[in-house]
Amino acid sequence: MHIQVIFRVIGLMIMVFSLTLIPPILVSLIYSDGALQAFLYAFVINLVGGAVVWFPFRNFRGDLKIRDGFLITVLFWSVLGLFGSVPFVLTTDPELTFTDSLFESVSALTTTGATILTHIDSLPESILFYRQWLQWLGGMGIIVLAVAIMPMLGVGGMQLYRAETPGPVKDSKLTPRIAETAKALWYIYATLTAVCTLGYWAAGMTFFDALCHSFSTVAIGGFSTHDASIGYFDSVLIEAICTLFMLISALNFGLHFYAWRHKSVWHYFKDSEAQFFFFLLFSTITMASIVLAITSTYDWATSIRYAIFESVSIATTAGFGTSDFSVWPHFLPFLLIVTSFAGGCASSTGGGMKVIRILLILKQGFREIQRLVHPNAVIPVKVGGKAIEERVVSAVWGFFSAYLLVYVMLMIGLMATGIDQVTAWSAVAATLNNLGPGLGEVAANFASINDPSKWMLCFAMLLGRLEVFTLLVLFTPMFWQR
Amino acid sequence: MHIQVIFRVIGLMIMVFSLTLIPPILVSLIYSDGALQAFLYAFVINLVGGAVVWFPFRNFRGDLKIRDGFLITVLFWSVLGLFGSVPFVLTTDPELTFTDSLFESVSALTTTGATILTHIDSLPESILFYRQWLQWLGGMGIIVLAVAIMPMLGVGGMQLYRAETPGPVKDSKLTPRIAETAKALWYIYATLTAVCTLGYWAAGMTFFDALCHSFSTVAIGGFSTHDASIGYFDSVLIEAICTLFMLISALNFGLHFYAWRHKSVWHYFKDSEAQFFFFLLFSTITMASIVLAITSTYDWATSIRYAIFESVSIATTAGFGTSDFSVWPHFLPFLLIVTSFAGGCASSTGGGMKVIRILLILKQGFREIQRLVHPNAVIPVKVGGKAIEERVVSAVWGFFSAYLLVYVMLMIGLMATGIDQVTAWSAVAATLNNLGPGLGEVAANFASINDPSKWMLCFAMLLGRLEVFTLLVLFTPMFWQR
Ligand SMILES: [K+]
Ligand SMILES: [K+]
Repeated sequence: MHIQVIFRVIGLMIMVFSLTLIPPILVSLIYSDGALQAFLYAFVINLVGGAVVWFPFRNFRGDLKIRDGFLITVLFWSVLGLFGSVPFVLTTDPELTFTDSLFESVSALTTTGATILTHIDSLPESILFYRQWLQWLGGMGIIVLAVAIMPMLGVGGMQLYRAETPGPVKDSKLTPRIAETAKALWYIYATLTAVCTLGYWAAGMTFFDALCHSFSTVAIGGFSTHDASIGYFDSVLIEAICTLFMLISALNFGLHFYAWRHKSVWHYFKDSEAQFFFFLLFSTITMASIVLAITSTYDWATSIRYAIFESVSIATTAGFGTSDFSVWPHFLPFLLIVTSFAGGCASSTGGGMKVIRILLILKQGFREIQRLVHPNAVIPVKVGGKAIEERVVSAVWGFFSAYLLVYVMLMIGLMATGIDQVTAWSAVAATLNNLGPGLGEVAANFASINDPSKWMLCFAMLLGRLEVFTLLVLFTPMFWQR
Repeated sequence: MHIQVIFRVIGLMIMVFSLTLIPPILVSLIYSDGALQAFLYAFVINLVGGAVVWFPFRNFRGDLKIRDGFLITVLFWSVLGLFGSVPFVLTTDPELTFTDSLFESVSALTTTGATILTHIDSLPESILFYRQWLQWLGGMGIIVLAVAIMPMLGVGGMQLYRAETPGPVKDSKLTPRIAETAKALWYIYATLTAVCTLGYWAAGMTFFDALCHSFSTVAIGGFSTHDASIGYFDSVLIEAICTLFMLISALNFGLHFYAWRHKSVWHYFKDSEAQFFFFLLFSTITMASIVLAITSTYDWATSIRYAIFESVSIATTAGFGTSDFSVWPHFLPFLLIVTSFAGGCASSTGGGMKVIRILLILKQGFREIQRLVHPNAVIPVKVGGKAIEERVVSAVWGFFSAYLLVYVMLMIGLMATGIDQVTAWSAVAATLNNLGPGLGEVAANFASINDPSKWMLCFAMLLGRLEVFTLLVLFTPMFWQR
């Protein structure tokens, strides 16, 4: 472990992060919304805070190894979550506790989109902008993490992507090609955002709303500048644009990278994960449409409209809303939240366990049945015609069981504070899957939840975003030995 | 497939099963309880029904293969479930629908112990006896299934027990040593029942109650002759006896077999699964005692007494009750039901996923963490000092994911009929884990559940008892090919 080098990196990271407060400062200046002071103070605090961490270690150099990668990744999200909360702590409108500020900041950076705020429409523009902006930055971080770092760390079977995606490969040094990869991904991500913004704007949003919503759409974050979320606009066109960009952002960015570099689109159709993702979505939408229509919840056209939007929004783990779940047959919201466990594709801004893992698990479940019928046959698990290494498969299993174990423990933790079972169930799903909204008490927001639960849910958001193991491994003595 | 031979076997099985109606007939004669006619008719119906199935195929012989084993196993439980329901259909006190009769019969034979009956205390003695007796027979079937048949079929990693337990090994013929093994297990099972009966009787139960409750204790069935279950007796001694025999019956009967043959007890203490089982129980009991006491639900002594009994009763999946959960802090019943997912040890009469599988899953989860820290090390998964084959491990994973998938699908199915989430959650847990009682609407009994849900729950009980895959495999075209 190179603790000093890590401190230097984290200090630098915080200083760079303080620069991200400049755009909300400009927004506050433009709108004269009264939040300027909070952001200016926050800027100084973060810059100085970063410098204090960096200064004592500024001369330490050294190559970072894989094990350092775990620590840096965890520190990146937790430390930035902490510093990201400073403007929320300082602002007087809204007046927020430290716990609520941290919750909002972690929720934004992990692109979860669970909020403790109420009456969002009346908040200062710079605060609204900042939440969306944090999601966008978080989304960018997730892409780099997923494409460049996770395959190297090999968390939860993600070594699967080592050979196929760009990024530093097969050696144990955490250095060269990350920067190059990150730059290409940044172009793709920024381009998607720009196009999405223009789309929303052309479809009738104000430019401010268009920009803010494109941030949270491309990041699959789900924050909005309105309490009614996308439903505020009541526009089929805006919903269609949102749906399209949620889908694009929930695909593996490795595919976008390939499209960018090779000017090709056909590989999207050949990708097993993408195929399975659309199959799952199509099944969910069909089922939801039929159920909404035959139960006369809405007419057919409205049923299909809402079914498409809500299914995509929840299955991709974006968490935008257009309609009121409380009038739906109550097993549908349950079913939709179950789909968020699959979530987006690997290396996307989506949450959940990732479609590729569910696909691998189902394939192996099917193999077990084959083995029962043909006990002596050797049957490999294949994805896209390629046999998957036993090691990747077992890493995926490990991930799956750790995910569920953590899920149940968090649920028990929440219930121990007195929260009812349905709320606890959906609150943990909403945070661990980086989804956002839940059911029961947390259907609209997390304001009424007690503080210990908010801390547990912050932890859940980080666990989800860090693919569980990246964070869990730090709690083992083994990690810290030698 | 040897369909004709299988029909012959099933026909014989039904005829033999009709003989099991003789004890309830005797009970009805002794108590003159008015149910005699129902049992006599049922006897004739089952005997004739079995003969009708058997007669056309009486001359077909042939060795049965592994694949036939799946079909026979599934038919054994489903067909006997059907024929076992005949007395419930015919009796006029209680007056039961076919669905309810089938539910009660399947619940008894699978030793689930979920009931659709209310006001149990006032039922005819022969009906009461018959329910307990069916559980006892079911328990016997489960032991033979688990010790002699499952290891051979290799369902869910149970080939793990091929070498270690008696039974027909390593060749693909379903014949010789099953009878021998079954006989030894029968002695053990009958001895346990006899000792348990004497214990209950000496502790103050009537002989009838003692016998009936020993049936459902040793079978980990959980049926009682009283609405208040074991709580009816309000006796610490009876609870202690019940706890002891639930624990014994939840251990691997392979251990009892070894004890029987080698006159040894030390091997119990060296068994990894048993160690982990007691570790889980001890943790649950400690936690439940402390929570009950510090929340002033009961005084300390009562807290410990109820915590021990309820933890053992639910973790072993027996499902007996002594206290009213509704006054408990509501996360405790949730936690207890979560423990029923682990359930009993493999090759016991307990339900759930079985302790050994949970142990293997945790060990492999731990190995994944080790692999993250030491990416190049080769780390085997060991139980009791012996490395477990990769094939067994992946079969356990397959089992785990199939179990959870089935769980979620059944839950969605129940909710689609209008059942609330907590009731659906606990009803599926109660049946798939072969536990018995649930929470919400099904805390006391399943009488108020709609008929389609009762059918789904019957299916869940069979799935749980047949280790999911044994039943699922029949729904694949692959199974029926060639
Ligand atoms: K989200
Ligand atoms: K039971």
